[in-house]
Amino acid sequence: MSEKKNIAIMGAGLVGSLLSLYLAKRGHKVDLYERRPDLRTTVVDGGRSINLALSDRGWRALKGIGIEEEVRKVAIPMRRRVMHDEQGNLTFQPYGKEGQAIYSVSRGGLNVALMNLSEPNPDITFHFSRQALDVNLRTNEVQLRNLETGESETVQPDLLFGADGAFSVVRGAMQKTERFNYEQHYLEYGYKELTIPATAAGGWAIEKNALHIWPRGNYMMIALPNLDGSFTCTLFFPYEGERSFASIKNGDDLLAFFKGVFPDAVPLMPGLVAEYFENPVGSLVTVKCFPWSFAGKSLLIGDASHAVVPFYGQGMNAGFEDITVLDQMLEAFEGDDWEGLFHRFERRRKPDADAIADLAVLNFIEMRDKVANPRFLLRKKVEGKISEQYPDRWIPLYSMVTFTDLPYSYALETGMKQEKIMKKVMKHINTLEDYDSPEVQQLLEKQLVQKEKLKPYRG
Amino acid sequence: MSEKKNIAIMGAGLVGSLLSLYLAKRGHKVDLYERRPDLRTTVVDGGRSINLALSDRGWRALKGIGIEEEVRKVAIPMRRRVMHDEQGNLTFQPYGKEGQAIYSVSRGGLNVALMNLSEPNPDITFHFSRQALDVNLRTNEVQLRNLETGESETVQPDLLFGADGAFSVVRGAMQKTERFNYEQHYLEYGYKELTIPATAAGGWAIEKNALHIWPRGNYMMIALPNLDGSFTCTLFFPYEGERSFASIKNGDDLLAFFKGVFPDAVPLMPGLVAEYFENPVGSLVTVKCFPWSFAGKSLLIGDASHAVVPFYGQGMNAGFEDITVLDQMLEAFEGDDWEGLFHRFERRRKPDADAIADLAVLNFIEMRDKVANPRFLLRKKVEGKISEQYPDRWIPLYSMVTFTDLPYSYALETGMKQEKIMKKVMKHINTLEDYDSPEVQQLLEKQLVQKEKLKPYRG
Repeated sequence: MSEKKNIAIMGAGLVGSLLSLYLAKRGHKVDLYERRPDLRTTVVDGGRSINLALSDRGWRALKGIGIEEEVRKVAIPMRRRVMHDEQGNLTFQPYGKEGQAIYSVSRGGLNVALMNLSEPNPDITFHFSRQALDVNLRTNEVQLRNLETGESETVQPDLLFGADGAFSVVRGAMQKTERFNYEQHYLEYGYKELTIPATAAGGWAIEKNALHIWPRGNYMMIALPNLDGSFTCTLFFPYEGERSFASIKNGDDLLAFFKGVFPDAVPLMPGLVAEYFENPVGSLVTVKCFPWSFAGKSLLIGDASHAVVPFYGQGMNAGFEDITVLDQMLEAFEGDDWEGLFHRFERRRKPDADAIADLAVLNFIEMRDKVANPRFLLRKKVEGKISEQYPDRWIPLYSMVTFTDLPYSYALETGMKQEKIMKKVMKHINTLEDYDSPEVQQLLEKQLVQKEKLKPYRG
Repeated sequence: MSEKKNIAIMGAGLVGSLLSLYLAKRGHKVDLYERRPDLRTTVVDGGRSINLALSDRGWRALKGIGIEEEVRKVAIPMRRRVMHDEQGNLTFQPYGKEGQAIYSVSRGGLNVALMNLSEPNPDITFHFSRQALDVNLRTNEVQLRNLETGESETVQPDLLFGADGAFSVVRGAMQKTERFNYEQHYLEYGYKELTIPATAAGGWAIEKNALHIWPRGNYMMIALPNLDGSFTCTLFFPYEGERSFASIKNGDDLLAFFKGVFPDAVPLMPGLVAEYFENPVGSLVTVKCFPWSFAGKSLLIGDASHAVVPFYGQGMNAGFEDITVLDQMLEAFEGDDWEGLFHRFERRRKPDADAIADLAVLNFIEMRDKVANPRFLLRKKVEGKISEQYPDRWIPLYSMVTFTDLPYSYALETGMKQEKIMKKVMKHINTLEDYDSPEVQQLLEKQLVQKEKLKPYRG
């Protein structure tokens, strides 16, 4: 067990709030500084996505601090993708095996739950409406402005955690240090949030336990269920071009477009026009950087070190997994070499952070385009059969990412090998029955057993 | 011809100074703001590389403004690589065909020459010791601090050019705008400049008209000739590891290391120990970003938009080529749509800037490792023969980059195709005589004539 520290966490979002619980558990004194006012007493217009998909990596981190059951009460399982075509016809794709699901949770609700769980802890103090202006990484002094009083203050913790998101101020300070590798890349797409309200009877207007997708080639809309019967829809759409945010100039343009391509959704969205023109367009950025720490005094965590686009539903889950991994390292940590600890942590997590960033961009193409293709859905079924027949040798990529704690980097690498095998297999498949043909069975035997291309993960 | 503008160029380095001449030629009024004092009256410790390799793209830009001959007087042709092995034995590799060379020029000398050529122009004004503090891209207001008087001033040009290098302040402002793509990546290597002074008789201690390389696998030293008989040596060396900047702690370490691996250089470097411990270690960064302009009011150029590592000797040449391309566009420019012009420029140059950045990193491996390999040198000779036999179909990659104005992106793509063909050819080559064997000749006929894999560039 190491010496107790005064720790400051910049950002009391999901990752910062959860991290405070883990650090306090190990006896440290934790102060959180959050730019926004207290979510629980002020209506905060986040500008961030309203709901999130919580999956196994996230659950594991919640469980690790004993709050899994508390959160499960407010989470809605989504067991399959429901695809809506341009005529309003539906097709379906289960997310995993029987019983597996991803969970729709409210970002704000989960954040409030985490704050409520941590605030009673005497070693955890929340400071709201504190904007970080500057960080001196050498001294660990943080200049803050109190946005309620206008006053400035300076804090100087022993350790500083930057859980301050994709536009992290702590990372901004690191970017000015020697040899800091950094990249930020934006998609040419933005997103806009819209609503399918609850029915008059207070129920869900479309299948509740599903993630809905309207895949349209180079753009798409999705919808996730909320506890109150509504769905939050998100339109992912090019900024520029023939069909784009730029091309929709008024309510008529919007309705003509929606009726043409999302006809079954329009009657469910009475506030469409007003919402569309009121809500901002969000941007979609990937951030990668290295290192994540400075001099054993500060460490980036979550989006601050690896912001990803939302198409794998893994942003929060990856941030929560950072905490699980850090906590495992703290379990074995003795002495006071935080610099060594932070270096081990960043080296361990960096390949996985890079992998989920790349997977998230790739999954956008799958969601907006491929899931509309019957051949793609057949392929997913064939892959399900392979996984049933060879459960020790084949977990589909989506399942590795979503339903296991295999490293993201292993999942990406294995997924690429599986992709090659699937291409060979699909040459022999016209219907699902062809799976049992000798050609397919011999091919799988050769690839999976004789060549042993896909060995189980061994750390 | 478009309306005359008040133009500010941030940075009066090589690219900024040359750009001022081109813009004034078109009738614009140009002010240059440079952080450093006037090079011509103050000894400036640059911390930047002392000499540079000027090649065809650079010459073209100098010629375009009529100052080629002026610069040629102070440039030393380097016609070949001279490799020094660990026993001091030499091998040679010509850079191009008979008469082709790259030119060693002094960064400071060239900069002074450019300033002296532009300053008499009444439309060009240099402002030295002006540090840019902040840029408001919306209003084009630039806050400057006069480092001599300590006073602040604000300028507001019609157009702002950011020629302010790899750590550009103008780019820093762009990075805070919406959806700006940006990356900075450092090599795990630094560099240190050292000197081989002139001989007592005032001559060059090693072959004058050559670029010298001491290739040592994962590190290397190079030397470029200066007009005064000296050579500037640059040691490219890992920051960390068994043989690295970190491992050399004192003069004994240094001399033991140099005598072991650069034995023929040590007697030529009497000031080695003092210089090594006085001179800083420079870092090696690649910067990529997009877009390069903002609202038709500001444009990045040269290193500010595309800093590259020095291993292809193309950093300055690429920046100068930016100016050639911009000037071609200005030649046809009418009206006042600078936003459109800047967009066309950035879209045209971005793929080439990316290509030379990647080529420069790849060439480090060639210089520090491959040139020590006899088989590699044989391959270069074979490639020379192919290029002689098929002059319209094969220009070696190095020559495309260095001795033509073919786009860097075309050179990179073609170079990769050539690489594949060379691998096939070299399977049949043990000595240079094998080039004339039927196997090789048939292979080349098939690849270059029948398949037409390498067609001439057609814009």
